[in-house]
Amino acid sequence: MQPLKVDGERLWQSLMDLARIGATPKGGVRRLTLTDLDRQGRDTFVQWARAAGMTIRIDAIGNIFARRAGVDDSLPPVMTGSHLDTQPSGGKFDGAYGVMAGLEVVRRLNDLGIRTRAPIEVAAWTNEEGSRFVPTMMGSGVYASVYAVGEMLAQKDVDGVSVGEALKSIGYQGDAKPVKVGAYFEAHIEQGPVLENTGTTIGAVQGALGQRWFDVEVTGQDSHAGPTPMELRRDALLAASRLVVETNRVACTYPDNARATVGHMRVAPNSRNVVPGAVNMTLDVRNAKDETLLAMVEDLRRSAAKIAAETRCTIDVKEVLYFAPSHFDPKLVESVRASARALGLSCRDIVSGAAHDAVYLNRIAPTAMIFVPCEGGLSHNELENARPDEIAAGASVLINAMVAAAVVAEAAQAA
Amino acid sequence: MQPLKVDGERLWQSLMDLARIGATPKGGVRRLTLTDLDRQGRDTFVQWARAAGMTIRIDAIGNIFARRAGVDDSLPPVMTGSHLDTQPSGGKFDGAYGVMAGLEVVRRLNDLGIRTRAPIEVAAWTNEEGSRFVPTMMGSGVYASVYAVGEMLAQKDVDGVSVGEALKSIGYQGDAKPVKVGAYFEAHIEQGPVLENTGTTIGAVQGALGQRWFDVEVTGQDSHAGPTPMELRRDALLAASRLVVETNRVACTYPDNARATVGHMRVAPNSRNVVPGAVNMTLDVRNAKDETLLAMVEDLRRSAAKIAAETRCTIDVKEVLYFAPSHFDPKLVESVRASARALGLSCRDIVSGAAHDAVYLNRIAPTAMIFVPCEGGLSHNELENARPDEIAAGASVLINAMVAAAVVAEAAQAA
Repeated sequence: MQPLKVDGERLWQSLMDLARIGATPKGGVRRLTLTDLDRQGRDTFVQWARAAGMTIRIDAIGNIFARRAGVDDSLPPVMTGSHLDTQPSGGKFDGAYGVMAGLEVVRRLNDLGIRTRAPIEVAAWTNEEGSRFVPTMMGSGVYASVYAVGEMLAQKDVDGVSVGEALKSIGYQGDAKPVKVGAYFEAHIEQGPVLENTGTTIGAVQGALGQRWFDVEVTGQDSHAGPTPMELRRDALLAASRLVVETNRVACTYPDNARATVGHMRVAPNSRNVVPGAVNMTLDVRNAKDETLLAMVEDLRRSAAKIAAETRCTIDVKEVLYFAPSHFDPKLVESVRASARALGLSCRDIVSGAAHDAVYLNRIAPTAMIFVPCEGGLSHNELENARPDEIAAGASVLINAMVAAAVVAEAAQAA
Repeated sequence: MQPLKVDGERLWQSLMDLARIGATPKGGVRRLTLTDLDRQGRDTFVQWARAAGMTIRIDAIGNIFARRAGVDDSLPPVMTGSHLDTQPSGGKFDGAYGVMAGLEVVRRLNDLGIRTRAPIEVAAWTNEEGSRFVPTMMGSGVYASVYAVGEMLAQKDVDGVSVGEALKSIGYQGDAKPVKVGAYFEAHIEQGPVLENTGTTIGAVQGALGQRWFDVEVTGQDSHAGPTPMELRRDALLAASRLVVETNRVACTYPDNARATVGHMRVAPNSRNVVPGAVNMTLDVRNAKDETLLAMVEDLRRSAAKIAAETRCTIDVKEVLYFAPSHFDPKLVESVRASARALGLSCRDIVSGAAHDAVYLNRIAPTAMIFVPCEGGLSHNELENARPDEIAAGASVLINAMVAAAVVAEAAQAA
């Protein structure tokens, strides 16, 4: 059988139509989770899914499941999806792409009269971004039993509104129970520069980096920049800067997709002619292997202790988050590669630097992800952009991988 | 003749009385220039000076000159002084000490019935701190013709009030013309840790460090901390941190009291999981010798260029201030040392890391400064503190150095 291809124009048009809900002047989207704009986005998806012959289930945390029946509807569904909520200054593709690509898969199967043995489901997970309510990936986390639904419903935004109240107010609190998932795929823009830089259309995502996040507090002593000789200083910014340099060294020397970042720094008193007495900073360490991640952290802790002693400052390093590395299902990842090959698309293995809903689904079902390039690697930004042909290519890879998993039972026509 | 000694208790009491004007709960003083509190401080000084038999002149920028007539009143006065304004969170000694020590010199000469050939003047310079109106050392700068008085009167605070308006509103705009100064002394707390750390009571200040200040703008590219591999980053905070480390290296390796400080840093977007795309920071470079100061700056510019190339960022280094190094009058500095020796006080040569009104007076008159220790080197801080015996010791050095310069004409009694 020839590989299937989606209708790229229809997919692109759906993405652009969806992006009008919460559109920002700079071309981005602001559609915070469980707001009325999110409701409009959800309503639109539900309407389109119903128009494609799908049935809708909503669960207690507001996850939406649109189902296309299988020939044997008792089989666990082959699922795909992502999220419809955005960052406060988000773009048109992050999340929306994965949901619309799933919808396009179903529409294309309808066009072709293809029925699969297993049912196909398209999920829209609640609150992936975590911008309004923490934690991120709330809906998929509840589905995978990472979080208790009661605790999540009680989480509040800065105005004191709870997730439960917000869900009710937009009419998206349901009672569907979780079902066993046969396989889970998620199409997503890369949100990084690797595919674009290597001229590759498809990233076959092998898993996601493990993450350890830290809050770092450096304490020295304020003193006048003029009268204080170098040898009598306790310069917290010097200590912090040396730790930034060490963070980069560690990330550049360890294997297994090592990354480490100081993204946030606050200096006190932050005055031009005062030697800084205190610095607060963050540290974000990632690696594909748990043992290498730990080795990086231990290296950085040793560096911090050495720097503290040499600068006569104290450096307090406190862990605030740990995500274990994810390893996606090798057979499904190979199916993504095979689909790309069959379509004649360039493809390379890639490890996701960020977490996605797929990371939680991976805990309960065989999972794989498909990355497509985004312009300049830019995401979480109103200028986030992607090429229509590459958006279509990723969805074509998705349809073939899903059909392989769900197994074709009937086809009205050879593709 | 035995060396003279001031009345340390009276001096201390005057400092404590003055510190009640603008006193803060933590024991500091907030007496911003040309405010009503500054007026109260000025009025108090003027009243005490008149009570000590002095005459008052006010000039166009509000500098106050309290004069004790000399036997030959046509001789250029031997002047001392400092400032009565404070930082927003200032202490009891910075500035106030130099003015009160001058007043105590006169009171003590009165006690002893000593008349000097040259007149003695105590100056309170307007707006040394520069907290409300820039630039710092405004009054002494005008006196030394560094600044045009018209331009300074037009300087405005954040509320749009001009120096001229503020001077009139507190009644301190006069019309006294500048007089030729025979010699200028200024007593001041060190504002640094050197005297305390070396167990020394008196610093004979040889001059002040030259200063070059810079605004540094580092531009890289924001990117996601997760999906962006190390080799594809343009991390502005890494570049900035390497420059902080280089700044410290340069200051620690160059001679001539080299100092260099990054006191201020602002990171954008300053988010935990975003590689920073931009950093603004300051750079403050100081040295006792102009040529060494320039060599430090050139070294740092080369370092910045190398770091920019290696991190694929741009680093823009813009000079915003230059103060040439000051060298005080060798004879007056020796007179300070001699006075300390005669009084049996420990004394060491020191270079002022900060600028003072004396730096501008040094341009128009032979000048020297006397430093006394302050607790922990702490200044520009409500916790600024000094020991009464050391405060008295500095004023005793001052009276002997001033009397040596003004020449004793009559003494009612041998000291």
